[in-house]
Amino acid sequence: MKEIYHCFWINAPLRKVYWAVTEKSGLSGWWTKSSEVSNRVGGISTFRFKSGAFNKMKIKSLSPTKIDWECVDGHEEWIGTQVTFELRKDGDGTKVCFSHYGWKTQSEYTGECSFHWANYLVSLKKLCETGYGTPDEGS
Amino acid sequence: MKEIYHCFWINAPLRKVYWAVTEKSGLSGWWTKSSEVSNRVGGISTFRFKSGAFNKMKIKSLSPTKIDWECVDGHEEWIGTQVTFELRKDGDGTKVCFSHYGWKTQSEYTGECSFHWANYLVSLKKLCETGYGTPDEGS
Repeated sequence: MKEIYHCFWINAPLRKVYWAVTEKSGLSGWWTKSSEVSNRVGGISTFRFKSGAFNKMKIKSLSPTKIDWECVDGHEEWIGTQVTFELRKDGDGTKVCFSHYGWKTQSEYTGECSFHWANYLVSLKKLCETGYGTPDEGS
Repeated sequence: MKEIYHCFWINAPLRKVYWAVTEKSGLSGWWTKSSEVSNRVGGISTFRFKSGAFNKMKIKSLSPTKIDWECVDGHEEWIGTQVTFELRKDGDGTKVCFSHYGWKTQSEYTGECSFHWANYLVSLKKLCETGYGTPDEGS
Protein backbone atom coordinates (compact mmCIF):
# COMPACT_ATOMS: atom_id res chain seq x y z
CA MET A 1 0.00 0.00 0.00
CA LYS A 2 1.54 3.26 -1.10
CA GLU A 3 -1.57 5.26 -0.36
CA ILE A 4 -3.80 5.59 2.68
CA TYR A 5 -7.30 6.53 1.57
CA HIS A 6 -10.35 6.90 3.82
CA CYS A 7 -13.76 8.31 2.80
CA PHE A 8 -16.61 9.02 5.18
CA TRP A 9 -19.57 11.30 5.81
CA ILE A 10 -19.92 13.94 8.52
CA ASN A 11 -23.28 15.24 9.65
CA ALA A 12 -22.12 18.88 9.65
CA PRO A 13 -21.83 21.62 7.03
CA LEU A 14 -18.74 21.93 4.87
CA ARG A 15 -17.63 25.20 6.49
CA LYS A 16 -17.43 23.46 9.88
CA VAL A 17 -15.31 20.62 8.49
CA TYR A 18 -13.12 23.17 6.70
CA TRP A 19 -12.60 24.97 10.03
CA ALA A 20 -11.70 21.66 11.71
CA VAL A 21 -8.94 20.85 9.22
CA THR A 22 -7.49 24.35 8.77
CA GLU A 23 -7.66 26.28 12.07
CA LYS A 24 -5.71 25.72 15.28
CA SER A 25 -8.92 25.53 17.33
CA GLY A 26 -10.21 22.85 14.95
CA LEU A 27 -7.06 20.74 14.53
CA SER A 28 -6.42 20.87 18.31
CA GLY A 29 -9.88 19.43 18.85
CA TRP A 30 -9.42 16.17 16.96
CA TRP A 31 -5.74 15.55 16.09
CA THR A 32 -3.30 16.91 18.65
CA LYS A 33 -3.77 19.65 21.22
CA SER A 34 -0.13 20.65 20.83
CA SER A 35 -0.11 22.36 17.47
CA GLU A 36 1.10 25.55 15.86
CA VAL A 37 -1.06 26.12 12.82
CA SER A 38 -0.46 28.29 9.78
CA ASN A 39 -3.51 29.22 7.75
CA ARG A 40 -1.78 30.54 4.62
CA VAL A 41 -0.43 28.75 1.57
CA GLY A 42 3.32 28.27 1.98
CA GLY A 43 3.10 28.39 5.77
CA ILE A 44 4.21 25.53 8.01
CA SER A 45 2.15 23.91 10.75
CA THR A 46 3.75 21.83 13.52
CA PHE A 47 1.94 19.00 15.27
CA ARG A 48 3.39 17.40 18.42
CA PHE A 49 2.21 14.16 20.02
CA LYS A 50 2.41 12.83 23.56
CA SER A 51 4.75 10.07 22.36
CA GLY A 52 7.35 12.71 21.49
CA ALA A 53 6.70 12.33 17.77
CA PHE A 54 6.06 15.44 15.71
CA ASN A 55 5.59 16.48 12.14
CA LYS A 56 5.80 19.73 10.21
CA MET A 57 3.33 20.20 7.37
CA LYS A 58 3.76 22.80 4.63
CA ILE A 59 0.41 24.15 3.42
CA LYS A 60 0.45 23.52 -0.34
CA SER A 61 -3.10 24.58 -1.18
CA LEU A 62 -6.15 25.85 0.65
CA SER A 63 -9.47 25.93 -1.12
CA PRO A 64 -12.90 25.36 0.44
CA THR A 65 -13.00 21.89 -1.08
CA LYS A 66 -9.36 20.77 -1.05
CA ILE A 67 -6.58 21.18 1.49
CA ASP A 68 -3.10 19.86 0.68
CA TRP A 69 -0.15 19.48 3.00
CA GLU A 70 3.37 18.22 2.42
CA CYS A 71 5.34 16.77 5.31
CA VAL A 72 8.67 18.63 5.50
CA ASP A 73 9.97 17.31 8.84
CA GLY A 74 9.19 14.57 11.36
CA HIS A 75 9.31 10.78 11.13
CA GLU A 76 11.71 9.75 8.39
CA GLU A 77 9.00 7.77 6.58
CA TRP A 78 6.70 10.80 6.55
CA ILE A 79 9.09 13.35 5.05
CA GLY A 80 8.06 14.10 1.46
CA THR A 81 4.64 12.45 1.81
CA GLN A 82 1.47 14.40 1.05
CA VAL A 83 -1.79 14.68 2.95
CA THR A 84 -5.01 15.77 1.25
CA PHE A 85 -8.50 16.45 2.59
CA GLU A 86 -11.18 16.65 -0.10
CA LEU A 87 -14.52 18.06 1.07
CA ARG A 88 -17.83 17.99 -0.78
CA LYS A 89 -21.33 19.05 0.28
CA ASP A 90 -23.41 15.87 0.42
CA GLY A 91 -27.06 16.20 1.47
CA ASP A 92 -27.19 17.95 4.83
CA GLY A 93 -23.61 17.01 5.57
CA THR A 94 -20.14 16.73 4.10
CA LYS A 95 -18.35 13.88 2.35
CA VAL A 96 -14.67 13.78 3.29
CA CYS A 97 -12.03 11.88 1.35
CA PHE A 98 -8.68 11.81 3.12
CA SER A 99 -5.49 10.55 1.56
CA HIS A 100 -1.89 10.24 2.72
CA TYR A 101 0.31 9.27 -0.18
CA GLY A 102 3.82 9.37 -1.58
CA TRP A 103 5.18 6.68 0.76
CA LYS A 104 8.49 5.25 -0.42
CA THR A 105 7.64 1.72 0.68
CA GLN A 106 4.80 -0.36 2.02
CA SER A 107 5.43 -1.69 5.50
CA GLU A 108 3.74 -2.58 8.74
CA TYR A 109 4.42 1.03 9.68
CA THR A 110 2.22 2.40 6.88
CA GLY A 111 -0.47 -0.10 7.94
CA GLU A 112 -0.25 1.32 11.47
CA CYS A 113 -0.52 4.86 10.11
CA SER A 114 -3.65 3.86 8.15
CA PHE A 115 -5.28 2.50 11.30
CA HIS A 116 -4.26 5.52 13.40
CA TRP A 117 -5.51 7.99 10.77
CA ALA A 118 -8.91 6.24 10.72
CA ASN A 119 -9.12 6.62 14.50
CA TYR A 120 -8.25 10.32 14.27
CA LEU A 121 -10.80 10.79 11.48
CA VAL A 122 -13.49 9.32 13.75
CA SER A 123 -12.37 12.00 16.22
CA LEU A 124 -12.73 14.66 13.47
CA LYS A 125 -16.25 13.39 12.73
CA LYS A 126 -17.18 13.51 16.44
CA LEU A 127 -15.77 17.03 16.84
CA CYS A 128 -17.81 18.33 13.89
CA GLU A 129 -21.00 16.52 14.90
CA THR A 130 -20.96 16.96 18.68
CA GLY A 131 -18.35 19.62 19.51
CA TYR A 132 -16.11 17.05 21.21
CA GLY A 133 -13.28 15.12 19.58
CA THR A 134 -10.68 12.85 21.14
CA PRO A 135 -7.33 14.44 20.20
CA ASP A 136 -4.08 12.61 21.06
CA GLU A 137 -5.88 9.27 21.34
CA GLY A 138 -5.58 7.89 17.81
CA SER A 139 -2.15 6.35 18.18
CA MET B 1 -5.62 2.46 -3.63
CA LYS B 2 -6.04 -1.14 -4.65
CA GLU B 3 -5.29 -2.44 -1.18
CA ILE B 4 -6.69 -1.70 2.25
CA TYR B 5 -4.07 -2.38 4.88
CA HIS B 6 -4.38 -1.77 8.63
CA CYS B 7 -1.94 -2.91 11.33
CA PHE B 8 -2.53 -2.60 15.07
CA TRP B 9 -1.80 -4.21 18.41
CA ILE B 10 -4.26 -6.04 20.66
CA ASN B 11 -3.62 -6.55 24.36
CA ALA B 12 -4.73 -10.20 24.27
CA PRO B 13 -3.06 -13.52 23.44
CA LEU B 14 -2.91 -14.76 19.86
CA ARG B 15 -5.29 -17.68 20.54
CA LYS B 16 -8.01 -15.21 21.57
CA VAL B 17 -7.58 -13.10 18.43
CA TYR B 18 -7.58 -16.30 16.34
CA TRP B 19 -10.89 -17.28 17.97
CA ALA B 20 -12.33 -13.83 17.22
CA VAL B 21 -11.58 -14.04 13.49
CA THR B 22 -12.45 -17.71 12.91
CA GLU B 23 -15.40 -18.74 15.14
CA LYS B 24 -19.03 -17.67 14.92
CA SER B 25 -19.05 -16.54 18.57
CA GLY B 26 -15.99 -14.36 17.82
CA LEU B 27 -17.02 -12.89 14.47
CA SER B 28 -20.54 -12.16 15.80
CA GLY B 29 -18.97 -10.18 18.62
CA TRP B 30 -17.19 -7.58 16.52
CA TRP B 31 -18.30 -7.70 12.85
CA THR B 32 -21.92 -8.71 12.39
CA LYS B 33 -24.21 -10.65 14.70
CA SER B 34 -25.93 -12.22 11.71
CA SER B 35 -23.36 -14.69 10.47
CA GLU B 36 -23.07 -18.31 9.45
CA VAL B 37 -19.47 -19.30 9.93
CA SER B 38 -17.54 -22.20 8.49
CA ASN B 39 -14.35 -23.17 10.29
CA ARG B 40 -12.81 -25.44 7.66
CA VAL B 41 -10.73 -24.67 4.59
CA GLY B 42 -12.99 -24.64 1.52
CA GLY B 43 -16.08 -23.80 3.58
CA ILE B 44 -18.12 -20.66 3.02
CA SER B 45 -19.13 -18.14 5.69
CA THR B 46 -22.00 -15.69 5.18
CA PHE B 47 -22.15 -12.29 6.85
CA ARG B 48 -25.32 -10.17 6.77
CA PHE B 49 -25.59 -6.52 7.74
CA LYS B 50 -28.47 -4.38 8.98
CA SER B 51 -28.33 -2.34 5.75
CA GLY B 52 -29.34 -5.47 3.82
CA ALA B 53 -25.82 -5.92 2.45
CA PHE B 54 -24.19 -9.32 2.74
CA ASN B 55 -21.09 -11.14 1.65
CA LYS B 56 -20.01 -14.76 1.34
CA MET B 57 -16.42 -15.58 2.14
CA LYS B 58 -14.69 -18.79 1.10
CA ILE B 59 -12.08 -19.92 3.65
CA LYS B 60 -8.86 -20.24 1.63
CA SER B 61 -6.46 -20.97 4.46
CA LEU B 62 -6.55 -21.33 8.23
CA SER B 63 -3.32 -21.35 10.16
CA PRO B 64 -2.74 -19.96 13.66
CA THR B 65 -0.94 -16.96 12.14
CA LYS B 66 -2.73 -16.40 8.83
CA ILE B 67 -6.37 -16.56 7.83
CA ASP B 68 -7.34 -16.00 4.19
CA TRP B 69 -10.80 -15.47 2.75
CA GLU B 70 -11.99 -14.89 -0.79
CA CYS B 71 -15.26 -13.07 -1.39
CA VAL B 72 -17.42 -15.26 -3.64
CA ASP B 73 -20.72 -13.35 -3.44
CA GLY B 74 -22.06 -10.01 -2.21
CA HIS B 75 -21.41 -6.43 -3.35
CA GLU B 76 -20.21 -6.44 -6.95
CA GLU B 77 -17.00 -4.62 -6.05
CA TRP B 78 -16.19 -7.23 -3.39
CA ILE B 79 -16.54 -10.35 -5.50
CA GLY B 80 -13.11 -11.82 -6.18
CA THR B 81 -11.35 -9.67 -3.57
CA GLN B 82 -9.32 -11.29 -0.79
CA VAL B 83 -9.23 -10.64 2.94
CA THR B 84 -6.26 -11.65 5.08
CA PHE B 85 -5.64 -11.50 8.82
CA GLU B 86 -1.99 -11.98 9.81
CA LEU B 87 -1.41 -12.57 13.52
CA ARG B 88 1.90 -12.48 15.39
CA LYS B 89 2.70 -12.77 19.08
CA ASP B 90 4.12 -9.40 20.13
CA GLY B 91 5.11 -8.98 23.78
CA ASP B 92 2.11 -9.80 25.95
CA GLY B 93 -0.26 -9.21 23.08
CA THR B 94 -0.82 -9.77 19.39
CA LYS B 95 0.10 -7.72 16.34
CA VAL B 96 -2.61 -7.90 13.69
CA CYS B 97 -2.12 -6.92 10.06
CA PHE B 98 -5.35 -6.89 8.10
CA SER B 99 -5.54 -6.51 4.34
CA HIS B 100 -8.37 -6.43 1.82
CA TYR B 101 -6.96 -6.51 -1.68
CA GLY B 102 -7.64 -7.44 -5.28
CA TRP B 103 -9.96 -4.48 -5.96
CA LYS B 104 -10.50 -3.85 -9.64
CA THR B 105 -10.52 -0.07 -9.26
CA GLN B 106 -9.86 2.65 -6.73
CA SER B 107 -12.93 4.69 -5.91
CA GLU B 108 -14.62 6.58 -3.12
CA TYR B 109 -16.27 3.25 -2.34
CA THR B 110 -12.95 1.56 -1.54
CA GLY B 111 -12.08 4.59 0.62
CA GLU B 112 -15.35 4.06 2.50
CA CYS B 113 -14.55 0.37 2.94
CA SER B 114 -11.12 1.26 4.36
CA PHE B 115 -12.73 3.58 6.93
CA HIS B 116 -15.44 1.05 7.83
CA TRP B 117 -12.93 -1.78 8.21
CA ALA B 118 -10.85 0.35 10.61
CA ASN B 119 -13.96 0.93 12.72
CA TYR B 120 -14.73 -2.79 12.79
CA LEU B 121 -11.11 -3.56 13.68
CA VAL B 122 -11.40 -1.22 16.67
CA SER B 123 -14.42 -3.35 17.60
CA LEU B 124 -12.30 -6.52 17.21
CA LYS B 125 -9.64 -5.00 19.49
CA LYS B 126 -12.28 -4.07 22.11
CA LEU B 127 -13.84 -7.54 21.98
CA CYS B 128 -10.48 -9.23 22.59
CA GLU B 129 -9.38 -6.79 25.29
CA THR B 130 -12.64 -6.31 27.22
CA GLY B 131 -15.05 -9.03 26.09
CA TYR B 132 -17.32 -6.46 24.41
CA GLY B 133 -17.18 -5.39 20.76
CA THR B 134 -19.56 -3.19 18.78
CA PRO B 135 -20.75 -5.39 15.90
CA ASP B 136 -22.91 -3.88 13.15
CA GLU B 137 -21.73 -0.36 13.96
CA GLY B 138 -18.75 0.03 11.65
CA SER B 139 -20.67 1.04 8.56
